[in-house]
Amino acid sequence: MLGCGTVGAATIRMLHEHRDDIARRAGCRLEVTRVAVRDPARVRDVPLRPEAFVSDPMAVVDDPDVDIVCELLGGSEPAGSLILAAFEREKPVVTANKELLATRGRELFDASDAKGLDLYFEAAVGGGIPLIRPLKESLSGERIRRVMGIVNGTTNFILTKMSDEGRAFDDVLAEAQRLGYAEADPAADVEGHDAAAKCAILASIAFNARVTAADVFREGITGVSTEDIEFARRLGYVVKLLAIAEMGDDERIAARVHPAMIPAAHPLANVRDAFNAVFVEGDAVGELMFYGRGAGGDPTATAVIGDLVSVARNLLADARGVGCTCFHERTIRPMDEMTGQYYILLRVEDRPGVLADIASVFGRSDVSIKSVWQEGTGRDAQLVFITHRAREGSFQEAVASLRDLPGVEEVRSILRVEAEE
Amino acid sequence: MLGCGTVGAATIRMLHEHRDDIARRAGCRLEVTRVAVRDPARVRDVPLRPEAFVSDPMAVVDDPDVDIVCELLGGSEPAGSLILAAFEREKPVVTANKELLATRGRELFDASDAKGLDLYFEAAVGGGIPLIRPLKESLSGERIRRVMGIVNGTTNFILTKMSDEGRAFDDVLAEAQRLGYAEADPAADVEGHDAAAKCAILASIAFNARVTAADVFREGITGVSTEDIEFARRLGYVVKLLAIAEMGDDERIAARVHPAMIPAAHPLANVRDAFNAVFVEGDAVGELMFYGRGAGGDPTATAVIGDLVSVARNLLADARGVGCTCFHERTIRPMDEMTGQYYILLRVEDRPGVLADIASVFGRSDVSIKSVWQEGTGRDAQLVFITHRAREGSFQEAVASLRDLPGVEEVRSILRVEAEE
Repeated sequence: MLGCGTVGAATIRMLHEHRDDIARRAGCRLEVTRVAVRDPARVRDVPLRPEAFVSDPMAVVDDPDVDIVCELLGGSEPAGSLILAAFEREKPVVTANKELLATRGRELFDASDAKGLDLYFEAAVGGGIPLIRPLKESLSGERIRRVMGIVNGTTNFILTKMSDEGRAFDDVLAEAQRLGYAEADPAADVEGHDAAAKCAILASIAFNARVTAADVFREGITGVSTEDIEFARRLGYVVKLLAIAEMGDDERIAARVHPAMIPAAHPLANVRDAFNAVFVEGDAVGELMFYGRGAGGDPTATAVIGDLVSVARNLLADARGVGCTCFHERTIRPMDEMTGQYYILLRVEDRPGVLADIASVFGRSDVSIKSVWQEGTGRDAQLVFITHRAREGSFQEAVASLRDLPGVEEVRSILRVEAEE
Repeated sequence: MLGCGTVGAATIRMLHEHRDDIARRAGCRLEVTRVAVRDPARVRDVPLRPEAFVSDPMAVVDDPDVDIVCELLGGSEPAGSLILAAFEREKPVVTANKELLATRGRELFDASDAKGLDLYFEAAVGGGIPLIRPLKESLSGERIRRVMGIVNGTTNFILTKMSDEGRAFDDVLAEAQRLGYAEADPAADVEGHDAAAKCAILASIAFNARVTAADVFREGITGVSTEDIEFARRLGYVVKLLAIAEMGDDERIAARVHPAMIPAAHPLANVRDAFNAVFVEGDAVGELMFYGRGAGGDPTATAVIGDLVSVARNLLADARGVGCTCFHERTIRPMDEMTGQYYILLRVEDRPGVLADIASVFGRSDVSIKSVWQEGTGRDAQLVFITHRAREGSFQEAVASLRDLPGVEEVRSILRVEAEE
């Protein structure tokens, strides 16, 4: 094992506690023989002899007693080099490293395929929720069209609190940090980097293609206001940070992470607090949803152990699980060519003709309005629009024109609307 | 393939349509070479030569060109004998046969284990929802405590309609039969037999034990009235037919199928129409939910194909997937020893002292009341009670006493309340 943080320690404890059941499924005992950690002298609450801990991760990879390498360091390096080193030594790998897979997946999968060795990574997306195995194995014969998920627990916790209690983003973020739900530096979560990495992995698996984090359009939740959430509520929506990957009939893939309003009756709308859920739509299977705890030591450790058992079984049988399924070279559709619905909140002058002017701007860009709501008077007049489906490029063009339009004092906010039309 | 109904035909079409992607995952082409059907001369909308159809299922099992037998006949016989015959000929089996697995599972798994051959059955529970593989493989290291699911689409459709439209059971059942959601003889669905078979399979997998349909307490939805549904709504609940399997600290298993009231905010409460969902609770993983289309040709065919691909991969590697995981002999807890909450609706005389008498009956049986609601006057007076958790035996004793109590004119209905306390 490389790394022994929350997930690593939970994995070691669980492997020990359920060792008999695990041995029966794996066909052999799974023993953690060597663990690389920064400080091997530190006392840890895991059922391992102190001698098992070493500071040099290569000592783990090199150890002839080690049959499977379990990488739980996170980050790109040294994790990536260590995984490659494991493959060179003919050792299969289990990892939970989403950043690495989402940026250097191709390199790692090519190396594992070249050697015919397993690279399992259920824990990289959705914590304890079985996602990778169902997508790769159970849905082998399916043509998946869309994957849409809440894959970051921190932002879902924040949005749920904002929604329930009418509190502002900064306020709730501070509470999440106190409770340990958010990091001291929250950027990876609130700016959507974590969700974008998971989106890239899900898109790769769902569409049998290589999608990297750089292919994913990304917008975080720092701009979501209590006002947006309140308007969403009144109009029958809920605001969620969504990771969405789609494949059109042209076989191009679109992948994006952004806050969005979804209808309050949609199954994802009721996914609250730090829970995660991934909604999958396929030609034959219709709609599927996988729901559960997307983070945390114990849930994530169950995913790691599921992988370890499969890899051990494969080793014993001298076989290999399903390898990389990214068979296809597919192109990414630029964000401008996406179509979607939008919510836009404007502060406007409360005088005759303004609404007509705004409506003409939308019309000229071929953006059709579904509903409009006016509120307040005088300098506080606000207009909320929900559009029908429109091209992103056209909508952005309309927004640019609105910013220059006399009568529009401010474009206060824009959100995408998903899962409706 | 044995049988070519809706699922079989969808499987053949999908194997053909996605043959290249499937071949890449399986490592070989999957071809349907021979199909046993009642009438081989009938024209079928599947991409197969007419010569592929035969009337004798043993001709399929015996054919040296057949490497994998896919049993889609349903029912106990001849399906069971054919599966055993396949094992005798060293051929692995994929089946969707829940009745067979829930009644003769031990015999089949023992035979597959004795031969070291795969017996896969994802399609037997939850149609296209990946359930068996996640439970058996992804959660290898988990101690599952409870599985609670909506596993019968017909009854969920009926209860959803009754709930939305305030219509009576018989009326909605007739509509479901017209729409093809319910069989002409609806007993297997509405009496809970189908759900009980699935409950037995889920309990066996979740708790690594042998649970048969006969071990499952079963009560259908024919007794659920519009009145019950309306009271549930007012009290903040929804009525669903649930399959529940639990393992207590004493390692005894309780398995039951019955209509129940669940809180309207519970994730299962929003599972509507013919959708299925299974909620899983484990020590480490916490709460998981799997949601999707639980029946229908196309969704179920995706599950069959996922299994076929795995079995084909295993054959090529001369390996075997995870075999029977029912390692433990566990005892079944009798229904009387269950504890749960209850809803009871009484028609009573509207006179002083009746409520006190009823309350004393509950008290004497050690059943504590959580809430009570009185409605109507005179001969139409009704009392609704929700209890705290109580032993089933004690509650039934109280109900027996209530039936004899002066002042209680009728015990109109009883429902269990789940997922609350």
